[in-house]
Amino acid sequence: MIIRSLYAVPEKKLDLQGAQGVSRRVPIGRQEQVPNFSFRVFTLEALGHTPYHAHESEHVNYIIRGKGALKDEHGNLHPVQEGDFCLIYPNEKHQFRNLSDSEAFVFICAVMKAYE
Amino acid sequence: MIIRSLYAVPEKKLDLQGAQGVSRRVPIGRQEQVPNFSFRVFTLEALGHTPYHAHESEHVNYIIRGKGALKDEHGNLHPVQEGDFCLIYPNEKHQFRNLSDSEAFVFICAVMKAYE
Repeated sequence: MIIRSLYAVPEKKLDLQGAQGVSRRVPIGRQEQVPNFSFRVFTLEALGHTPYHAHESEHVNYIIRGKGALKDEHGNLHPVQEGDFCLIYPNEKHQFRNLSDSEAFVFICAVMKAYE
Repeated sequence: MIIRSLYAVPEKKLDLQGAQGVSRRVPIGRQEQVPNFSFRVFTLEALGHTPYHAHESEHVNYIIRGKGALKDEHGNLHPVQEGDFCLIYPNEKHQFRNLSDSEAFVFICAVMKAYE
């Protein structure tokens, strides 16, 4: 078994078109030889956001900290905060946004390991 | 997409041999037509614990709240708390224990949907 604090996992800035102020950690993933799926953690700086995009892998999310919004495929923003779970289906367009201008927004984003 | 607060998800007592003071929620799972894996949440009452057992499905965990311990296959207890991630490999014997005599211990336990 593996036990790992989020804060012990190295963080990397995400350099991806359409992303702003996003960094990524992988506390449990391919490096740990997961059999099926990986837990990644994204941190959005104040007013940061992920790309507004779609892909074939689903996302299962848990909001660890902060207040943000999840933009749906119609362009509507839905508030999400600590304690919320999200499911984004395959090929569904989406974007996570940090609505705070001062606090970080931190969430788990689980995917099948092929998409880690 | 689905957005769901943990606190809006019905909780069921787990009646399982070797478990004590355990309840279970499934915020994102088969009912939401997950493609691959499910997020379940377990709450252990003060001094509660899951069974000390092994099974073919892996667990990927995130500790949402509280202070507990994860017992490994050798019987050793490893402290786990809010902000920790765990990976339990297939067929690895394990048990989650709440070490507090007053506060709940709450964690995500993700599994492939067949084992939800």
